[in-house]
Parts: sequence; structure tokens; C-alpha cells
Amino acid sequence: MTLSKLKQEVCEANKALPKHGLVTFTWGNVSGIDREQGLVVIKPSGVAYEDLTPESMVVVNLDGEVVEGELKQSSDTPTHVCLYNHFESIGGIVHTHSPNATSWAQAGKELIALGTTQADYFYGDVPCTRAMTNEEIETAYERETGLVIVETFTKRNLDPVAMPGVLVHSHAPFAWGTSPEDAVHNAVVLEECAKMAMQSLQLNAGAPRMNQALLDKHYLRKHGKNAYYGQ
Amino acid sequence: MTLSKLKQEVCEANKALPKHGLVTFTWGNVSGIDREQGLVVIKPSGVAYEDLTPESMVVVNLDGEVVEGELKQSSDTPTHVCLYNHFESIGGIVHTHSPNATSWAQAGKELIALGTTQADYFYGDVPCTRAMTNEEIETAYERETGLVIVETFTKRNLDPVAMPGVLVHSHAPFAWGTSPEDAVHNAVVLEECAKMAMQSLQLNAGAPRMNQALLDKHYLRKHGKNAYYGQ
Amino acid sequence: MTLSKLKQEVCEANKALPKHGLVTFTWGNVSGIDREQGLVVIKPSGVAYEDLTPESMVVVNLDGEVVEGELKQSSDTPTHVCLYNHFESIGGIVHTHSPNATSWAQAGKELIALGTTQADYFYGDVPCTRAMTNEEIETAYERETGLVIVETFTKRNLDPVAMPGVLVHSHAPFAWGTSPEDAVHNAVVLEECAKMAMQSLQLNAGAPRMNQALLDKHYLRKHGKNAYYGQ
Amino acid sequence: MTLSKLKQEVCEANKALPKHGLVTFTWGNVSGIDREQGLVVIKPSGVAYEDLTPESMVVVNLDGEVVEGELKQSSDTPTHVCLYNHFESIGGIVHTHSPNATSWAQAGKELIALGTTQADYFYGDVPCTRAMTNEEIETAYERETGLVIVETFTKRNLDPVAMPGVLVHSHAPFAWGTSPEDAVHNAVVLEECAKMAMQSLQLNAGAPRMNQALLDKHYLRKHGKNAYYGQ
Repeated sequence: MTLSKLKQEVCEANKALPKHGLVTFTWGNVSGIDREQGLVVIKPSGVAYEDLTPESMVVVNLDGEVVEGELKQSSDTPTHVCLYNHFESIGGIVHTHSPNATSWAQAGKELIALGTTQADYFYGDVPCTRAMTNEEIETAYERETGLVIVETFTKRNLDPVAMPGVLVHSHAPFAWGTSPEDAVHNAVVLEECAKMAMQSLQLNAGAPRMNQALLDKHYLRKHGKNAYYGQ
Repeated sequence: MTLSKLKQEVCEANKALPKHGLVTFTWGNVSGIDREQGLVVIKPSGVAYEDLTPESMVVVNLDGEVVEGELKQSSDTPTHVCLYNHFESIGGIVHTHSPNATSWAQAGKELIALGTTQADYFYGDVPCTRAMTNEEIETAYERETGLVIVETFTKRNLDPVAMPGVLVHSHAPFAWGTSPEDAVHNAVVLEECAKMAMQSLQLNAGAPRMNQALLDKHYLRKHGKNAYYGQ
Repeated sequence: MTLSKLKQEVCEANKALPKHGLVTFTWGNVSGIDREQGLVVIKPSGVAYEDLTPESMVVVNLDGEVVEGELKQSSDTPTHVCLYNHFESIGGIVHTHSPNATSWAQAGKELIALGTTQADYFYGDVPCTRAMTNEEIETAYERETGLVIVETFTKRNLDPVAMPGVLVHSHAPFAWGTSPEDAVHNAVVLEECAKMAMQSLQLNAGAPRMNQALLDKHYLRKHGKNAYYGQ
Repeated sequence: MTLSKLKQEVCEANKALPKHGLVTFTWGNVSGIDREQGLVVIKPSGVAYEDLTPESMVVVNLDGEVVEGELKQSSDTPTHVCLYNHFESIGGIVHTHSPNATSWAQAGKELIALGTTQADYFYGDVPCTRAMTNEEIETAYERETGLVIVETFTKRNLDPVAMPGVLVHSHAPFAWGTSPEDAVHNAVVLEECAKMAMQSLQLNAGAPRMNQALLDKHYLRKHGKNAYYGQ
């Protein structure tokens, strides 16, 4: 894939955020990576989605240094770069403050798997990071945000391919996928699952995690070599 | 009715799902049956609603075997076929992950009849199935989903005509009706009743089931030989 | 006012219901009265809002007898007629199953006045009727629905002009006003207040009724001879 | 800035209220101030947003006296004028009954800072005023509404620039900013934060205030001399 094609994909994926109701104002950004060249394409900071063009996207390397682009990159760029460095199989990342997932992040609670909707995309509970320390916040905050996500996945032995999202404590969700478009897809699912789980727990505060066999069945009928959903 | 007319009806009923806000992405499918020929027309798997045409619908027989269509049938086809085999008076089936009804399914709670809106369409509480066993999940999962619905209706002695919907535990709702269009109509009502009952119980955790006489009155003024609603 | 002008007003007020998000399918009806002629104009039963025309409206007298119209009148007509007979100062009535107000009706709880939004239109708590008896339901149900509303207002000594709405237990709201348009306006306000009060009580289960002086101030700056809101 | 330019800005900011879903009917008003001339431009009372033109805006001085305009000024004008007199660094004010923020106001609870979305715009908890006294309500009510807001900020030693909004007890929110447009921006954020905090507390009734270091980080990366968000 050429960089110009990736810019177009990242631009379109950013423009999809307001269409899916995931963002207010400019509260969200999508990036994509060209693994071969080691280059990340990301939304410029604070620019309205309707004003985005492929040419206005910013290109940074895996050290987070800008290598192309006239505008300033998203302030969350170091988080994206950190995740690309540690999660080597992902191709796109989305950060939003979508209201339902953010409500869980602010509650500091992991999104437990209550039903097949979540199981179709997320192989288990969507984790919530620990709160960040003052030192992490006061130094390289955005990079440390990435590191606390990585720590969460390492400690729980989670595969970022099977668990394509996370809730950052007191903050908001990040989601990812094989491409920028796939990352947005997962961000939409996360938001919908966050809404339904909230409502399920309101109806039944003791609603248990779903049966593991059911989780396996739904995840694996959509993912992996035995998948049989879709064309 | 010719099969081509049924394909058109099923196609239109599928396209109605996003219009009524019942689906995210491709999370829902509608089917219809030609009882004379014993043929079921159903949505193809994973295809976007806007891309559906009557010709792209898949035709299966009552053993679930594809008899016509170039695309793969919905992965939920065995559930639909099972329901058509056991509920002989229904003409259309809808499955969605509509958020409010799904929240009840995930809570594992039946949707009790709290008011006349539900009574106008559902003659009592909308049942929730038991959780499926590992064996059911791991063998013919989609067919077993149909069977656990049938079991729920048999055990409670429910008439699928008077109770045109169900919540599948840890999963989502199914609704049905005399035709694909009628099934979608009932799915919309179920979603709206699920929303209102959730809110009523939030306001009054001990809100009692509605008076049986009121339930009878509302259901029967819209259904059966003494109905007097509509033209 | 001529009857043809009233038909037009009632038709437009009915068409306003879906625009304000108050109805699903055909779950709502508006009527208006010509007090001089003693004639009520009301929506025909079960007809979609987009298909309504002034000519399709049904005219009934204050005994509920149809005097004009080719279609069958709304099944709720006896409730409307009952209210016009007892509440002599009202000019239009709306019945809907709008979700938030209906949630309160299903909870069987009056909508207490928690803030100035409600006080601007409703002079106090919006009452909820008692549950209807089996006898009331099984005889002239729709007329009895009107009578239980009237009983509620009589027992609480409420003025239907200052309290232009009610919640019918296990059912849904009715609202009214000086005209069909004004009745719809009040139905929208009721729905919005129902939503906010539900949320306020969720945040603070013991939220007290608003100060009476504040209720007086807001109601009276919009109504009566000392009103100073608007042009 | 000329007064005609300010009228245009205030007119546009008022028209933005329904676009952002902040208002039902005419339940909101925006004003702006020309500090040099000491003149406030505000929405006329009870006029629909779609009918507003720059020429229909009303101009008042800092004593609240109308100096220009054919229509009557918003009934809330004395609150706006009071705030401009006491908060000398603000340039625009918005009052709405937006449902989520109003729910908090009716609950009489301050909106605690639970996450970075709020921290990006509001430097801490958004305060709720005390209930107003009968005397305050019965005399110069609208001006006293302004004074109780000012009292709230004085007692808590809050800077209206860093805390651009407030909840008025049993009433609704006010928000402000450097301009009418910026005030509307803050009103949208307030509404969104009110929604998410409500949901977070529903998920975790004991959700703690966010870490002060995180609050500082987010507020200061968007505001002040070390800001690094945006272009």
C-alpha cells in the first residue's frame, strides 16, 4: 500500500467518526500504519472532520517524529505510536470520547462480556486500565497512556487482536483493528456494547458474565480459520 | 404468493431494520415463508442493507438446505427454519440485536407487561429463554437456539401468535408475525416496550404487572374477532 | 372558526406528533373542539400520519356520535369526548404513548415538579390516576378512562387549565390545551419533563419538590394577567 | 468589533442551540457583550430560532435598559447583565434547559469532575447554586438568579474563565465563554459531561473525583500559555 492510499483511508476513517455518532466537536482521532515503511498517518490536531483532506493528514515515524505534513499532529499521537510499537499486529487505532464507553472508563470498571454482541468482536471483558500515577501524568503523559494500556494487556495476558479495545481510567476508550476502517468498526461495537451492558446491569445488578462456551462460539464463528459468518 | 413477491417482501423488510433504528452494521436479519411450497426466503449473511436486492435473497427449504441463491444464507438460518417448523402459523421472522431488548436478554429477565403499549401487541410477559447448555452451544448452535425458544413456549404454554417475540438469554430478541413486514412491526414494538419497562422499573422497582383485565382489553381490542381498532 | 379550519388544525397537530418524536407507528391522536357547535374533530383510527388530510378527519358530537367522516374515528374518541364534556375550558386534546411519560404512567407515579421547566407549563405535580377497576375496564373502557381522569382532577381540586396533562395508570399520558396545537405543545413539554425528572431522581433519589415560590414565579411569568414572557 | 457584527454573532449562536440539540421550543438564549461600549446584545423573548435575524436582536446597556430593538428582550436578560457586570472577562453567555445538565440542576448536585472530557474545558467540578430564597424569587428574580451564581463563585473562590458554567438549583444551566460562540461550545460540553457523569455514577455510585494531576494536565494542555492542543 502506498502512503497516499493510507492517507486517504485514515482521512475517511476520521470522517466516519461523526457519522457513527462517536464524537462531539473534534473529540476523536484515527490513525493507520504502513508497517513496511514504519510510518504512521494520523489526524491533525483540533481540525473539524468536515475540513479534513488526505493531504492534511500528518505522517510520523515510530519514534513519533513528524516526517510529513503542514499541520500539527493530534496531541494523542504518542499514545498511538506507543501502541503500534507494542501491538505489532494492528493496523489502525481510534481514540474517541464516545459517551457510553467513556462512562465506563470514568467509572473505572471493565466492560464485562454479558452477551453475544460483545462476543462477536471482543473475546471477553474489555479491560479498564489502572489510574495513572502523578509521575506518569506529569512527564510524557500521552506516551505513558500508551504504556499503561500495554501494561494492562501484558498483566492480563490479553492478545490485542482478540481484544481490540480498552478503557483508559478516568479518560475514554481506545479501539484498534487490522486497518483504520476496522478500528472504527470496533469503536462503534464497543460503544454499543457499553450502552447495552449498562442497561443490563441496571435491570439486573448481578447479571453474570456470559457462558464461556457461548463466548467461544460467537467469537470463533466470526474470527479465525473456522469462521462461517459473512460471504 | 409467488416466490419472487416473497423475495421482494423479505428484501424490503430487511431494509426497514435500519430505518427503525433496530440494527448497527449488519446485526439483524428477516425471513419470510411460503407455506405452500415449504420455502423460506432469508437475508444473505453479512451483506449491508443498502446493498440488498430481491435477487440477492437466499431460498432454503424446511430442512435448511439452500435451494436458490448465489450468496451464503444468514448464519442464523437454522434458528429461523426451526421456528417455522414448530410455529406453524407464523409467516415472517426477525432477529436483531436492538439495544433495549438485548439489554433485557443480557440481564436474563423476561419483559413483564407493565402497560397497554405492550398489551396492544404481546398478550402478556415476553419470555426469556433459559441459558443454553454447553452441549447445545457446541453442537448445532443455531438450530438449538430455535429449540430452546420452542421449549420456552411449550413449557409456558404460550401461543406464538399471541406472543410474537422472545428474548434469548445472553443473546438478543427474535420477533415474528404473519408476514415479514408484520414481524418487523413487532420487533419495533418489542424494542419500545423494552425501553419503557426499563425506565418504569427504574422509577419504581416494585412496579407490578398490569391488571389482567386491562391486558385482555387492550390485546383483544386489536386482535381476534371482536377487534375494533383501525379501519 | 369554521369546521373546515378546525379540521385543518387537527390534521396538522396530528402530523406534528411524529415530528416531535412523540409517536411510534400510529400510537397517538389529537382532537379539537368547536365549542359553539359542540363538535369534536378527531383523527381516524389506525391511519398513518403521513396519509392524513383535513378531509379524512372524523367529526363527532358531544355524545360521541359520528356526524361526519368516511373513516372510523380513533378508538380513544370516548375519552376525548368525556374530557371535553368535563373540562369546559380546553380546546384540544392529545393522547400518545410517548416513552418517557409512559414510563411514569407504567410506574404508577405522579411526575413531581422538580424544576422550572415543568413550572413554566404545569402548575405543580402532574397527577397519575388510580388503576382502573375490572368493571371500568370491561364496560365502557374508553369513556371510563376519561372519567378516572376527571375523578383525579376533582379529588385533587386541580384546574385543567393550570394542569394541562395527566398520566393514566398502566397506560400513557393525555395532554390538552387551548387548541390542538397548544395541546401538542404541552405533550412535548410533558415528555421532556418526564425525562429530566427520571434522571434527577436517579442522581438524587430524595430530590425534593421545588420551592412553591419558585413554582409560582415561573408559572405566573408565563400565564395569567401578569405574564411577561414572550412578545 | 462593531455592534452589527456582534448582533450577527449572537444571532448565529442562538441558531446553533437547536442544531446542537440543546433546546426544545424557545427554551434557551444567547447573548454577547461589546465591552468597549458597555452594550449587551441578546435574543428577543419567545421568538423561534429559525425566525431570528441579526436585526431582531435586542441591545441593552449594563443597567439592563433597552437601548435598541423593536422586540422585547429575553426575560432572562437581568441574569445575563448581572453576570457581565461581575464576571468582567467573559464575552458571551448561554442559558438553556438542556436535559442532562438540567437533570443535575434539579437534583441540586454539583457535577463532579470524573474524567478528562470535563477537564478539557472545566477546571474542576461544575458548581450548583444553593436554592434561592422566597425573597429572592419574589423580588427581582432574574437579577437575583445572577447574584446567586456570583455568590457561588465567590464562596468557592472560582474563576469564571476556568469554570465557564454553573447549574442553578431547581432550574437549569448557564454557560459562558470568551464569545457567544465559545459560550455555546461550553454549553455543549457541559451537556455531554452531565450525561456521562450520570452514567458513570449509575455504574459506580462511589466513582471518585478524578486525580488532580490529571485534571491539571488536561485543562492546561488546552488552556493558558503552555497549551499544546490544536493548530
